[in-house]
Amino acid sequence: MKNFSITGTYTDLYQLSMGQVYFLKGAGEERAVFDYFFRKIPFGGGYVVFAGLGTVLEVLEEFSFSAEDLDYLRQIGLHEEFVTYLRNFRFRGSVYSAREGDVIFPGEPVLRVEGSILEAQIVETVILNLLNFQSLVATKAARMRSVAGDKILSDFGLRRAQGLGGYHASRAAVVGGFNSTSNVVAGRDFGVSVAGTMAHSFIQRYEDELAAFRDFAEKRPHNCVFLVDTYDTLESGVPNAITVAKEMEENGHRLSGIRLDSGDLAYLAKRARRMLDDAGLHYVTITASNQLDEYVIKSLQDQEAPIDIYGVGTNLVTCPPDAALDGVYKLAWSNGKPRIKLSDNLKKTTLPDRKQVYRLINGNGNFYGADLVALETEQSFQRMHHPIDPDKSMSVEGFEREPLLHPVMKDGKLIGAQPSLEEIAAWSRTRMAMLAAEHKRFEFPHIYKVGISTELRDLRNRLKNQYRN
Amino acid sequence: MKNFSITGTYTDLYQLSMGQVYFLKGAGEERAVFDYFFRKIPFGGGYVVFAGLGTVLEVLEEFSFSAEDLDYLRQIGLHEEFVTYLRNFRFRGSVYSAREGDVIFPGEPVLRVEGSILEAQIVETVILNLLNFQSLVATKAARMRSVAGDKILSDFGLRRAQGLGGYHASRAAVVGGFNSTSNVVAGRDFGVSVAGTMAHSFIQRYEDELAAFRDFAEKRPHNCVFLVDTYDTLESGVPNAITVAKEMEENGHRLSGIRLDSGDLAYLAKRARRMLDDAGLHYVTITASNQLDEYVIKSLQDQEAPIDIYGVGTNLVTCPPDAALDGVYKLAWSNGKPRIKLSDNLKKTTLPDRKQVYRLINGNGNFYGADLVALETEQSFQRMHHPIDPDKSMSVEGFEREPLLHPVMKDGKLIGAQPSLEEIAAWSRTRMAMLAAEHKRFEFPHIYKVGISTELRDLRNRLKNQYRN
Repeated sequence: MKNFSITGTYTDLYQLSMGQVYFLKGAGEERAVFDYFFRKIPFGGGYVVFAGLGTVLEVLEEFSFSAEDLDYLRQIGLHEEFVTYLRNFRFRGSVYSAREGDVIFPGEPVLRVEGSILEAQIVETVILNLLNFQSLVATKAARMRSVAGDKILSDFGLRRAQGLGGYHASRAAVVGGFNSTSNVVAGRDFGVSVAGTMAHSFIQRYEDELAAFRDFAEKRPHNCVFLVDTYDTLESGVPNAITVAKEMEENGHRLSGIRLDSGDLAYLAKRARRMLDDAGLHYVTITASNQLDEYVIKSLQDQEAPIDIYGVGTNLVTCPPDAALDGVYKLAWSNGKPRIKLSDNLKKTTLPDRKQVYRLINGNGNFYGADLVALETEQSFQRMHHPIDPDKSMSVEGFEREPLLHPVMKDGKLIGAQPSLEEIAAWSRTRMAMLAAEHKRFEFPHIYKVGISTELRDLRNRLKNQYRN
Repeated sequence: MKNFSITGTYTDLYQLSMGQVYFLKGAGEERAVFDYFFRKIPFGGGYVVFAGLGTVLEVLEEFSFSAEDLDYLRQIGLHEEFVTYLRNFRFRGSVYSAREGDVIFPGEPVLRVEGSILEAQIVETVILNLLNFQSLVATKAARMRSVAGDKILSDFGLRRAQGLGGYHASRAAVVGGFNSTSNVVAGRDFGVSVAGTMAHSFIQRYEDELAAFRDFAEKRPHNCVFLVDTYDTLESGVPNAITVAKEMEENGHRLSGIRLDSGDLAYLAKRARRMLDDAGLHYVTITASNQLDEYVIKSLQDQEAPIDIYGVGTNLVTCPPDAALDGVYKLAWSNGKPRIKLSDNLKKTTLPDRKQVYRLINGNGNFYGADLVALETEQSFQRMHHPIDPDKSMSVEGFEREPLLHPVMKDGKLIGAQPSLEEIAAWSRTRMAMLAAEHKRFEFPHIYKVGISTELRDLRNRLKNQYRN
């Protein structure tokens, strides 16, 4: 496989088709504003964790067309003048964004791109691709974290990931609350701590399990975890692990843990824990894996299964049953005017103009449970309106308001130092802690309100009527 | 984002942990054989389309550790001797495989890796990652192709794809029967034909839709497709498209098509078709997009909606509700002996030794509906046994038998010329045509049998009893 990197052709062709028309009409430099937002919370949940911003900013900073890209675009018939223009193309726009790791809600703009209409259009696809997926995985991870207490969560997903998607899945999992990954390249590039010791094949290669464990312990005495279910967990795997753990003690080492990968994990963990404890091996941890998801983890926690580490693969990195977040990127302003996209469905009509999102804060410093979308220029706010139902509104006076969108890139250059993945993850935990428990439960979570200001509502309705006529 | 390529660290840490133990024990060069197979057909379907082989072979041919990889592995504590060994690591194993694009079934090995246990182990993750995902997408695509007749299927999925997974999704979609993609980098690297013209934002930028269509037609008169649902499909979009199509005719051009992206697609397509035809624009095609999947396409086809091109995004590239194929890679032979992995569940007990898969062919040259897994050394076959139920077997005498596994890589070198993506796709269509219709229906498809030979069954049972004792 050739080296793969995100360059200018990591986009949908129509972005370049439209870009070419703008360019040839001399309109490519017109100013435009686009909003990124999503419409539906996945997994029937009450929140989404915003992730992927760091990756998007790195991509935008370096976005350009390679010589190979330009040859290809020429070959498929793009106009020579436009291809020449793309040779020196760089993204020189500005970006306002929610902080990575924040909890976000449907219909509120969480990232805004301002730039020439040509550049803002060309980067649409990569922005959607990276934010949709990382936010989806971070949300799934946060759901698991929300029920896993202080247990360690480890990502085992690369083999079942959607191809190269596994690379960023491991990053996003950390944003959502995972502690480690089996994915070595994610460790290398994102600084995630990596974990992993043995597969069934290691045991199978030997005539017996005990010999396999002994060889492994001899050559890898640190962070040594035995997989105990190759033949029979309680009859063979755990007794053999105990035997070798005792031998390790004689050599001044300590077995780190055992891993259960099949069968009834609650039952086996309890039995194995007792066997280990009876042998004086209180320090040996138990890892459980095999088709875990947030519901299974919750059940194991509810049963007080003595599991120290949950290894989660497929259901973390591919996010069934909602394998995509439905984020979109819509034009809100161009060429001096606010813009709107109509729809027969008012829910899908977009919010025009440059906007800010304000989170209402309770007297105790936690989230009240409502975000207000307003025009950026607005200074004072009385009421917040339901985005669709004209009869619903509430007063927003008396609340502290925290603006969610911050400038993160100006004229193509990053603003300030970027947070590390560890910092993003830690901050995400503090934000999750500020969100009330009723928004976090799995079944019919309480709906977090997203409303619009009076001025924004009036502008939207004015434009709607204008285009309807 | 840094340049990303598949190198030695695109793996799970445990592969390297095990590899290091083999290396330090002097056992790294022991011969081993691993099988790739899957257990469950996704989407409640009757078949899987095998895809990703071309990518896997390219990866294996070049698989190595970069300087950055080696630094990182040293940093996380791998043994210096082992890191030094990895510096010159290349995959020098051999691969036997089903042909890419073939239809495959649960439990049969469709790819076999033979090599040193160290190299065969290290490449497990990337093989699983690429084959599982591309086979999943190719299968989803084939389901759509199976109901779309000769309509054009176009992949619009990159923005909703699972991150970088979108890259290979577009390749796999072609294997399964798609004709084109919006994904420009997939066009560049895989030669898929690319398609795409305009988004809603293009229309929104103008004061009115007619002006937008006119500018677009002026600067992009070839392959010009107007998106007609920005304001009102039948009241505004289609009439404006007709007006500009007539103007294009005066300039010697022809409008290529219109695209419907919301509303009832069957209703709108019929109404739009009539309006276009009444204006003498029989040649203008209709593209439909918006949350399509195999069921919606089937419904539109059943209703005889006059749609020429289906644009499919999310449901093609992320494959809900089964976002992962459960392919596994299991040790079948090592150090001179056949190997088995036991499980309480006989279904999950593996098949030992080097094997061949034979497809039974009917007198008319089509697939009979059963594949026989046998030891590679077997020459003659009488009966095929159910892999689990000892009471079920059938005679295989009198059938033509087509071997599915072919040598594709020897000692790390590709064998012969590799088929183009176009050739793979064409061959996949011929294989799908040989599969009986009852395996292809969406509801309760007829189960294609996968059985094992008498010798293989006996070997498995012998090993099972040996390890149980």
